Amino acid sequence: MVRPSDEQLSEWLAVAESLRSTLVPERVEPVAVATVVADPEAFQGWRVVRQGERALPITLKQGESVLFDFGEHLVGQLELRLRVVRGPQDAPLRVRLVLGEVPAEVAEPFDHYSGWLSRSWLQDEVLNLDIVDEVLVLPRRYAFQFVKVEILATGRNFDAQLEGIACLAVTAAQGEVPPAGADEELRAIDAVALRTLRNCMLTVFEDGPKRDRRLWLGDLRLQALGNYRTYRNHDLVKRSLCLLAGFTREDGAVPACVYEYPRAKSGDLYILDYCALFGATVLEYAESSSDWELARQMAPLAFRQIDIVSEKLDEHGTFVDDGTWWVFIDWSETLDKQAAMHGVLMCATLRCIELAERLEMPKEVQRLRRLHERLQVGAERLRDAGTGLFLSGKQEQVSWGSQAWMALGEAVTGDEAASVLRQVAENPDAVRPGGPYLYHYVVEAMLKAGMQREADALLRKYWGAMVRRGASTFWEVFDPTDEHRSPYGSHLVNSYCHAWSCTPAYLLRR
Amino acid sequence: MVRPSDEQLSEWLAVAESLRSTLVPERVEPVAVATVVADPEAFQGWRVVRQGERALPITLKQGESVLFDFGEHLVGQLELRLRVVRGPQDAPLRVRLVLGEVPAEVAEPFDHYSGWLSRSWLQDEVLNLDIVDEVLVLPRRYAFQFVKVEILATGRNFDAQLEGIACLAVTAAQGEVPPAGADEELRAIDAVALRTLRNCMLTVFEDGPKRDRRLWLGDLRLQALGNYRTYRNHDLVKRSLCLLAGFTREDGAVPACVYEYPRAKSGDLYILDYCALFGATVLEYAESSSDWELARQMAPLAFRQIDIVSEKLDEHGTFVDDGTWWVFIDWSETLDKQAAMHGVLMCATLRCIELAERLEMPKEVQRLRRLHERLQVGAERLRDAGTGLFLSGKQEQVSWGSQAWMALGEAVTGDEAASVLRQVAENPDAVRPGGPYLYHYVVEAMLKAGMQREADALLRKYWGAMVRRGASTFWEVFDPTDEHRSPYGSHLVNSYCHAWSCTPAYLLRR
Repeated sequence: MVRPSDEQLSEWLAVAESLRSTLVPERVEPVAVATVVADPEAFQGWRVVRQGERALPITLKQGESVLFDFGEHLVGQLELRLRVVRGPQDAPLRVRLVLGEVPAEVAEPFDHYSGWLSRSWLQDEVLNLDIVDEVLVLPRRYAFQFVKVEILATGRNFDAQLEGIACLAVTAAQGEVPPAGADEELRAIDAVALRTLRNCMLTVFEDGPKRDRRLWLGDLRLQALGNYRTYRNHDLVKRSLCLLAGFTREDGAVPACVYEYPRAKSGDLYILDYCALFGATVLEYAESSSDWELARQMAPLAFRQIDIVSEKLDEHGTFVDDGTWWVFIDWSETLDKQAAMHGVLMCATLRCIELAERLEMPKEVQRLRRLHERLQVGAERLRDAGTGLFLSGKQEQVSWGSQAWMALGEAVTGDEAASVLRQVAENPDAVRPGGPYLYHYVVEAMLKAGMQREADALLRKYWGAMVRRGASTFWEVFDPTDEHRSPYGSHLVNSYCHAWSCTPAYLLRR
Repeated sequence: MVRPSDEQLSEWLAVAESLRSTLVPERVEPVAVATVVADPEAFQGWRVVRQGERALPITLKQGESVLFDFGEHLVGQLELRLRVVRGPQDAPLRVRLVLGEVPAEVAEPFDHYSGWLSRSWLQDEVLNLDIVDEVLVLPRRYAFQFVKVEILATGRNFDAQLEGIACLAVTAAQGEVPPAGADEELRAIDAVALRTLRNCMLTVFEDGPKRDRRLWLGDLRLQALGNYRTYRNHDLVKRSLCLLAGFTREDGAVPACVYEYPRAKSGDLYILDYCALFGATVLEYAESSSDWELARQMAPLAFRQIDIVSEKLDEHGTFVDDGTWWVFIDWSETLDKQAAMHGVLMCATLRCIELAERLEMPKEVQRLRRLHERLQVGAERLRDAGTGLFLSGKQEQVSWGSQAWMALGEAVTGDEAASVLRQVAENPDAVRPGGPYLYHYVVEAMLKAGMQREADALLRKYWGAMVRRGASTFWEVFDPTDEHRSPYGSHLVNSYCHAWSCTPAYLLRR
């Protein structure tokens, strides 16, 4: 099979549509009026100082502003209760709103923004209110913890009075989840992870509710793993899987991302490692939901992804990046991705073997086992004879990513796996992960290699560092040595509540 | 009677409410794509150059903009038909709209605005469109002939395509009005006057649909006079009169202006000359509509206005401005208003005598006639024995306004009236009118004094000069010697479709 039938694709899209849910908003008020002050010790140089309980109503004259801290990251519409005081409204009221996930967004002007992604992702609005309604609900959805309300212009006869402000917060994550984590530090990490997961669970699993707001296959797998152990919204996973599968390309490749609006549409991007992991995502969904019917429908498509990646193997069974595909693995700018991608394919093949076994498809089991054996041979060719480390690319690069994925793909197991992981951890020249997505797979690899202690330490060190910097949700990008790091040319456009960073919610409940 | 009963006031407000109409929008498309270029010969230094028929759809990349000329001044909501082209919408689309009644508003940046009225009157919007709908109707009402659409930010994968743009134009003026004017010049003036009147006829008679957007008593009278001879929407006059009368102050003064939204409310401003003319407005309404019932209800309030102004007379029966009231007359900065206000009171008294006669109220007729005789005496004291001109204030100022209002009030009549009007017209030191409101009354005074030729010449000279400068509607403020003149510190905030400037529609049909 190269591609499912058109009828099958249409059916998946119809199922996805039928599972689109209406999110019920919950009204959340800010916890404090605040100011934001420069502080070199604070995250990105900005510290939010709470001024005490929110003291509404607040009268604001032209040129005045007020900052609200909602105490936690929220996703939803903004409700403003504005009134006119002193005299009648003799002119429109012009108001600017700036919404931020982190303090920098409400502290630094957007005018000088020079990132590579659209400036339109920065969350600000200018409202011209001819008539100040008592309750104004803005039409857009925002992702924020902080809101600055600035009165750009009143009339001569009136001032503005802000009587109330609230977020109509939405999520598809329902119910209370018992905390996880053996101590306070881990429970704090867990709480932030749960909020990250919750705030990305909308009408699909979004990657970031502030920026990008798309369903991505790679992020979906990690969110779904967290979801199975917490909110258990299986319909949302099913809808997401059906959307992705429903837009399968002519050659059988599942797209890396899908847009929901104005109508569901393929993002027309394809990522080789994400394709490979489609089968794992289908298997894990079926294991959690017991919906083996969907798994049966999607299994041939999952196996097709493995075939697509396998076309990139050389005569020795080693993955070779021919440059025709986007191989993601990580945002790191220096990482050579050959060995890691080889490991992803091995790992993906193992999960597809499991899938074929569960579905009682012996011929597929046999075929995939043969492939894994071939990949085993191919992996050996990337190993350094002395250290046992996997070397990637012509430069024979040593990286955390290569070792982690090779371990997850069982190119090495047990003590051998632990050995390569420990060696890179101790080698300052090894290329480290550039962000949470790859850090997650490193922790997973450690756990698989029996390195419970190291995995625990890394989780505390990496995700804990975000919590210690005041994170209310986990960030898309985090480099402890460079808080302004951005793959997009500006820290302002980074997403600070990001799907692939929610994995402690899974790791702490594994 | 000092003030009508509370029941009466409530009844008027209820009548006003019952006469609030729903305006039915008419879809109007631009006539051309255009550019605006600096040209010292053009009005305010800006010339709009049409680029030919509107060539939609237009593809706009980030940073690009397009200007539309609708060919005439319109009032209404804006409809945009936007699409995303080249790729999927991978980011919000950020669009800026700038709407202008005159070219300067779409040519000069608003950032440096330093007028005294709110910057919020300048018509611009920043839209952040998460999903580009096919048809977007902006919620606000604008007043404009020109619209600039500027694409502030797209995403990496898409451009914006503007497929359509239209104004959903509204007015309470229905039906076609046969043109007036003996020649092409006058018919051109008439057409602009009709459009001015039409675009100020909304759910009340507004003073300016761009800026202020209020019902003003003084403007109402002039609009109503035009309306009786053209669109004949008597309900709109009745609603406007009832709103003003319904908010009569404790002392019996009718407010100068009223706000309609969010609920009808007095503007809490009182203008002595506007109060005086309330009776004239009631009389003229009843004459045109035959609704003598409303006139009967409102007559005591009309007479009360005369009494309020009469309290300002000195022992000789001459008006003395004690500074406790706003006396408007004109926007001129140098005009001394004593003599003009005296003339307004005489003119208003004459109309109230007529009103009392029509309503068969002989005691009021007698009382008001005695007042007019007293005012006649008082007026004589302001006259220069040699020239016969009326002198105003301690400086004994000679102005057009003084002579015009004294003539309208019949302090002088016939040849005597013509003499004072001709004298000021020929005297370069006489204070000229500062704007259309007073120019109207000068023309009226000339017509009353039998100066048909001079009235006609002045109309062609003053209103014709606006038409020659490209006016599509007549302007709130126009000084032929200073095109940037503004009572508010910036020509950008002037209203360029203004109620009190519509009077050629009346004068040409008198």
